[in-house]
Amino acid sequence: MKTQLHRWLEQHREAGIELLQQMVRLPSTQGNEQSVQLLVAEQLRELGMVVEVWEPDGEALGTHPYFYSPRTQFAGSPNVVGVCQGTGGGRSLLLNGHVDVVPAGSLAQWERDPFSGAVVDGKLYGRGATDMKGGNAALLLALQAVQGIGLKLRGDVIFQSVIEEESGGAGTLAAILQGYKADAALIPEPTNLRIFPKQQGSMWFRIEVKGRSAHGGTRYEGVSAIEKSMIVLSHLQELEAQRNLRVTDPLYAGNPIPIPINIGVIEGGSWPSSVPDVVKLEGRMGVAPEEKLDDAKGEMQKWLALLPGKDPWFASYPPELTWFGARWVPGSVDASHPFMAVLMAQYREVSGQEPVIEASPWGTDGGLLTVLADTPCIVFGPGVTQVAHYPNEYIVLDDVFQVAEIIALTLLHWCGWDRMEA
Amino acid sequence: MKTQLHRWLEQHREAGIELLQQMVRLPSTQGNEQSVQLLVAEQLRELGMVVEVWEPDGEALGTHPYFYSPRTQFAGSPNVVGVCQGTGGGRSLLLNGHVDVVPAGSLAQWERDPFSGAVVDGKLYGRGATDMKGGNAALLLALQAVQGIGLKLRGDVIFQSVIEEESGGAGTLAAILQGYKADAALIPEPTNLRIFPKQQGSMWFRIEVKGRSAHGGTRYEGVSAIEKSMIVLSHLQELEAQRNLRVTDPLYAGNPIPIPINIGVIEGGSWPSSVPDVVKLEGRMGVAPEEKLDDAKGEMQKWLALLPGKDPWFASYPPELTWFGARWVPGSVDASHPFMAVLMAQYREVSGQEPVIEASPWGTDGGLLTVLADTPCIVFGPGVTQVAHYPNEYIVLDDVFQVAEIIALTLLHWCGWDRMEA
Repeated sequence: MKTQLHRWLEQHREAGIELLQQMVRLPSTQGNEQSVQLLVAEQLRELGMVVEVWEPDGEALGTHPYFYSPRTQFAGSPNVVGVCQGTGGGRSLLLNGHVDVVPAGSLAQWERDPFSGAVVDGKLYGRGATDMKGGNAALLLALQAVQGIGLKLRGDVIFQSVIEEESGGAGTLAAILQGYKADAALIPEPTNLRIFPKQQGSMWFRIEVKGRSAHGGTRYEGVSAIEKSMIVLSHLQELEAQRNLRVTDPLYAGNPIPIPINIGVIEGGSWPSSVPDVVKLEGRMGVAPEEKLDDAKGEMQKWLALLPGKDPWFASYPPELTWFGARWVPGSVDASHPFMAVLMAQYREVSGQEPVIEASPWGTDGGLLTVLADTPCIVFGPGVTQVAHYPNEYIVLDDVFQVAEIIALTLLHWCGWDRMEA
Repeated sequence: MKTQLHRWLEQHREAGIELLQQMVRLPSTQGNEQSVQLLVAEQLRELGMVVEVWEPDGEALGTHPYFYSPRTQFAGSPNVVGVCQGTGGGRSLLLNGHVDVVPAGSLAQWERDPFSGAVVDGKLYGRGATDMKGGNAALLLALQAVQGIGLKLRGDVIFQSVIEEESGGAGTLAAILQGYKADAALIPEPTNLRIFPKQQGSMWFRIEVKGRSAHGGTRYEGVSAIEKSMIVLSHLQELEAQRNLRVTDPLYAGNPIPIPINIGVIEGGSWPSSVPDVVKLEGRMGVAPEEKLDDAKGEMQKWLALLPGKDPWFASYPPELTWFGARWVPGSVDASHPFMAVLMAQYREVSGQEPVIEASPWGTDGGLLTVLADTPCIVFGPGVTQVAHYPNEYIVLDDVFQVAEIIALTLLHWCGWDRMEA
């Protein structure tokens, strides 16, 4: 069966590359996902799936506690879900991949058109090649290969092609609220073929640190918000250290900072010769796989309340903490979950190597599936994050096909199969 | 004579207030100085002065090492200089005041029209009332009073009404290059009637601190420019401490930071969940009265070169230092200078109190006069800096008239006098 799948994928390699090229050449940045979604929907119909295509209702979604998106209008941005009912008696599997890609950024940094889909030295180039159209193509190829060698799955397969992952997961949330769930889920985000049963969550925060303005020549008459923000920054470093000391999960072994607190933006003052009266810090707080977002928020808030112990200024002028923008729900699937065993076995079978099991250092839509849809989700896919979101993003095509083979075998072993009647 | 001057100023109080109101009501922000300059020129002509009104030649000025302005076109922004030739045998005095005012800023913070000139409870309100039209009015009143009581000065008086002080002194520089100089100079910037024989200089700088970008979830793969900037900031605090330890001038007694290094602006990163790869710091370096600008620049540059000793990162990625924008030349007049004695005596005579002698915590055009025009300049005037550049700027009118009286007496005692022929 492995041999048959492998041969089928080799024989359909050109078509598979063309499919991925087609997907990458459709620049599906936020608001522009329709073309690629219609392409995916067509692929799902060709697989005989019952396909639902719908534009999420932003008004209704907007009231959900897990909703985040900078927009509430999704006209022209459809979600696509295909369902293949099994022949019965097997376990169901949910496959999920997002089609939205981050903007190309500065064109000057790209060596070719960001949406070229060019194939050079076994790599396919373009925004979204790694994050995550390469993974999506692997899913489609896996389903095609299973069908191609004449097998039918016993369990249901649900294929979710979603929007909005890059902006906080509103696409997957909408699909969950549509009622889709399964016995397990797989998202082929770029893990470089490592298996991530756990995913870090994250939330964005803003802290406003206050000072008091004065002329720079008599700066001692004021209070520099920049100096005060230095205290806040080192205070946050201590919180990060404390939180990471608590992370004993062996999946994080070797990771120097499993759940980082990253300060990404600092901005304060407006005039070189004035004492700045406010500094804004913006950052991302990593949330442990088993942690609740609200607990992490509470810990940060309580920690900032300790600042007056470091500097009495903060008793009168406490920094203001707000949570804003994107956040990703963490996810955790137990290593003993039967889907893990199936996936690991197929990885060994195809690669001949022992799989690397880790916890992801970033959030995916997997947290929503695991926590909200009661569908334990594992992340495993081709591509390396080092090129995601960067100029000259690419994916190694061999990895796409190897992942397709592993997923095809996983589908067969998880869902069970019957031979098609001739 | 003091009694006569005092009586004259009391009798002409209403006219004096109206003159200051007229000046404040002309909103002479940068580029809009013409109306108030023509008013001043008219006042000088009425005093019998020979008046020169000219728009500085930005092209020619621009090549001067002491030139700084964000513009090189001064059409509509004339300088005004009036000269009153003395009867002979006396010392000359240069009086200098700037007419440019900083913008009103947010109108919401003003209780009334920023250019109202309204008089309430002995205070005259409006942008520029303190900085420094109140001082300019005091100069004009002093000259009027001397003439009013029938006296003629033996030494020459040069009255400079200049533009561009707020932007780096191009107006005074232009007047100096026109050839005006004298045995001493006085600038009535708002010292709150303290006498400043020395003035701090200052320069603006920018430091770019470098990091290396990475995703916030794996922030250990990057180098945070924000964390590196914390090291740079504390390194600069040490430099400030070292420089101020060297300041032993008793005129700075009681000043906690005679020559501050103020960081006014910090800006870095653009995305909460990315590691920021660059942080920009902008600040103002105070320069001691006897220090040379270039020496201070060199010290800062050398100090930053020590950073690799604190963190080897800086050996590969040294912060970039640039000097930009405004700078003010420091000035220093020896306490034993005879003009000091004359001014101090008149202060005692009018106020009945011992004068407070200090060094200014900010730059004025006095440094240019002292250093470049060889005209030792002392700063002494009405008004408090706490309201300068702020909403609801005002000046206490009694202070304007007291300073006018002190300056009138100073003119008489410095320049010498003769009684006018009837």
